[in-house]
Amino acid sequence: MSDWENTVRCISPYVPGEQPKEKDIIKLNTNENPYPPSPKVREAIEAFKYGDLRLYPDPDASELVKGIADLHKSKPSQVFVGVGSDDVLSVAFLTFFYSDRPVLFPDITYSFYDVWAKVYNIKYETVPLNGEMHINADDYLRVNGGIVLANPNAPTGVLESVDDIEKIVSGNPGSVVIVDEAYIDFGGESCLPLVKKYDNLLVVRTFSKSHSMAGIRIGYAIGSEKLIKYMNDVRFSINSYTMNRLTIACGAAELSDPDNFRSNCDKVVRTREYAKNALKRLGFEFPDSKTNFIFAKHETVSADLIFGELKKRKIYVRHWDKPGIENYLRITIGTSTDMRKLYDALSAILGVKEVQL
Amino acid sequence: MSDWENTVRCISPYVPGEQPKEKDIIKLNTNENPYPPSPKVREAIEAFKYGDLRLYPDPDASELVKGIADLHKSKPSQVFVGVGSDDVLSVAFLTFFYSDRPVLFPDITYSFYDVWAKVYNIKYETVPLNGEMHINADDYLRVNGGIVLANPNAPTGVLESVDDIEKIVSGNPGSVVIVDEAYIDFGGESCLPLVKKYDNLLVVRTFSKSHSMAGIRIGYAIGSEKLIKYMNDVRFSINSYTMNRLTIACGAAELSDPDNFRSNCDKVVRTREYAKNALKRLGFEFPDSKTNFIFAKHETVSADLIFGELKKRKIYVRHWDKPGIENYLRITIGTSTDMRKLYDALSAILGVKEVQL
Repeated sequence: MSDWENTVRCISPYVPGEQPKEKDIIKLNTNENPYPPSPKVREAIEAFKYGDLRLYPDPDASELVKGIADLHKSKPSQVFVGVGSDDVLSVAFLTFFYSDRPVLFPDITYSFYDVWAKVYNIKYETVPLNGEMHINADDYLRVNGGIVLANPNAPTGVLESVDDIEKIVSGNPGSVVIVDEAYIDFGGESCLPLVKKYDNLLVVRTFSKSHSMAGIRIGYAIGSEKLIKYMNDVRFSINSYTMNRLTIACGAAELSDPDNFRSNCDKVVRTREYAKNALKRLGFEFPDSKTNFIFAKHETVSADLIFGELKKRKIYVRHWDKPGIENYLRITIGTSTDMRKLYDALSAILGVKEVQL
Repeated sequence: MSDWENTVRCISPYVPGEQPKEKDIIKLNTNENPYPPSPKVREAIEAFKYGDLRLYPDPDASELVKGIADLHKSKPSQVFVGVGSDDVLSVAFLTFFYSDRPVLFPDITYSFYDVWAKVYNIKYETVPLNGEMHINADDYLRVNGGIVLANPNAPTGVLESVDDIEKIVSGNPGSVVIVDEAYIDFGGESCLPLVKKYDNLLVVRTFSKSHSMAGIRIGYAIGSEKLIKYMNDVRFSINSYTMNRLTIACGAAELSDPDNFRSNCDKVVRTREYAKNALKRLGFEFPDSKTNFIFAKHETVSADLIFGELKKRKIYVRHWDKPGIENYLRITIGTSTDMRKLYDALSAILGVKEVQL
C-alpha cells in the first residue's frame, strides 16, 4: 500500500444493473422504455451543426429548462437540470442534507440513497415498510435532517397517496423532503401541485424511463425558487457546464412531442396490466405496480433459480441478493413480443403447461 | 427565511466566463478553439441511431476510454473519464483530498480549485508565484494533504518544467499530486511519462481546448491503476452513467483523426506567436504563453477600461476584478481574422496609429 492511500475516500459504489454488450438479448433489467423517443429527436440530431461543438454549451441549458418549465407550468427558476436524476439527487443530497440529524428513507427503496449518504458523510436511518410494502406517513414525523421517498417506490413499484406525501412535507418544515418521481408517468398521481404550497418539497424526474432517453442522461427537479437557487449554487461549484449541446437539443426536441411520449407510456401501462395477469397465472405474487416494472416473487421457486434460468435463455431481469428482497425479481415491462418470450421462458422454467396466458 | 434553510450547504459558486447568446461577436473570453473538431465527429452524429437513446449508455464508456488509452499508450484501467475536466477534477478532489492537512496550489491559478475545496470542506493554502509568475518547486515540499497544479498555468499561460513537476511528485509520496494539463497541447512538455514512475501522480486533460469540443463535455485523467480505481469507486457512488451515448460516439470519432487535431493546434500556436508580437507593439506585457491564450497587461491603460471598450465593439475577452491580477486581460487566441479585428480595436482604443502590425 502506498503512503497516499491512507487519506483516500474509500467507498463501495452503487452497482447498476448489467449492461450486456451482446445484441440478441431481451433486456428487462434496467427499466428502460421499449419504445424510441420522439422522431423530433432524430430531427434535432440531423439538424445539429457539429462545428458548434467547439463552443461551450449554455451553462443554464435554458432551452431545455424552458421546455421543462412549460411542461409543468412552472417558472424556469423553479427547474434544476442534471446528468440524469442520479446527478440531480446527488446534488440535492449534498446541498440539503447538511445537519447532524439523520436523513430518513424506507428500508426497501432505491439503493443509491444510502450510497450518496455514505459518499457525502450524511447520517441516515432507514424506516421499515409495512407488510404491504407501503410507508406509514407518521413514521416520518420525527426529528430528521431530511427525507427522501421514491414514489412510486423502486424496486417495489408501490405508489403512495399525495395525501400521505403532503402529511410528511407539511409536518417537516425544518427539512427538505425529496420525492423521486422517476416512475410517476406510468399511472401515478404526482405531488407536483404541492410545490406551490410548500417551499421544502423537491420533486425529481428523469428522461430515462417515460421519455425513452436513458442514453442521453437528463434528469430534473422542480421546487421553490429558493430550493433551486441553493442547488444551482452547489452545482456551479462542481461543474459549470453539465449539459452538453447535443443533450440540450435532444431533450428540448423530445419535449416538443408530448403525443409520442403519452402514447409510449400508454402502451407500457397496457402491457404491464396484461403482465400482472400472466405472472399471477404463472404463480407469482407482487405488490400492485404503478411503474414500468413488476417486483415479483414466485410462490414456490426461488428468484435466484429463475434469474439464472432466464439468463441462460438470454432474458435479463434484475435480482438483488439482499436480505428481505432476495426472493424477488424486478421485471421491466418490454414490448408485448418481449413479454410473450418471457412468459414462454417462465412456463418452461416453472414447468407450467396448462395455463392460458 | 424558512426553517429548512438553517442546514443548507451555502456556497459562492465559480463564475464561468460569459456565454453571450448574440451571434455576431468575437469571442475570445473562454479559451475555445476557433476551429471545428474532426469531420469524423460529423459522421458519427450522422450515423447515430436515435432509437438507441432509449437504452442506458455503457457505464464504463469503454469505446471512449479505449481511444484515450491508445492515444497515450496506456491501459484502459489507467483512464478515468468525466463530464469535462471540471467533473474529473471535482471527483479527484473528493477522492484524494481527504485529510486534515491543507491542500496546496498557487495563489494565481484556475479559480475553480478553491471552490471545490470549499464545497467539499477541504482545507487549503495558496502558495505565491514568484515575480515571473513561476512556481518554486521547493515551496511544495512541506506537509500537505495534496497538491494541484495547472501546467501550463491558467490564467497566466506559464509552463513549468517536467523536472520541477517531478521534484514535487517524488517529494510527496504521502500525497496525490494532480497536474491539470488542460492547455498542454499548445506547445508544452507533458508530464505523462512520469505516470509510469509515480503512482501518486494524476494527469488531467480535456477535449474542450485542443480537441475543439467544449460543447461535448469530455475530460479525462491518466494515472496509476490504483488512483483510477479509487476515483471510479467515488464516481460510481455519485452517478452510474455520466457519459451519454452521443458523447461517447463523438469523443471516439474525434480521437480517430489525430491529423485534424494536430493541424488545429499548429494553427493556434502560429497565431499565438504572431499575437505576442502584435500585443507587444501595442504596449502590452505578459508572461510567455504556451497555451491558447495570452495573459496581458497594458503599460499605461487599465484592463478594466480596455475590457469595457472591447465589449462595446463586440469583442469579448476575460477580466477578473481580483487583487494581483486586476490589471490583466486573458485573451483567447482566435482565427487570424478574429485577431486582426482585435488588434484594430485595440489600436483604436489605445490611440495607437503608427505601429505596423
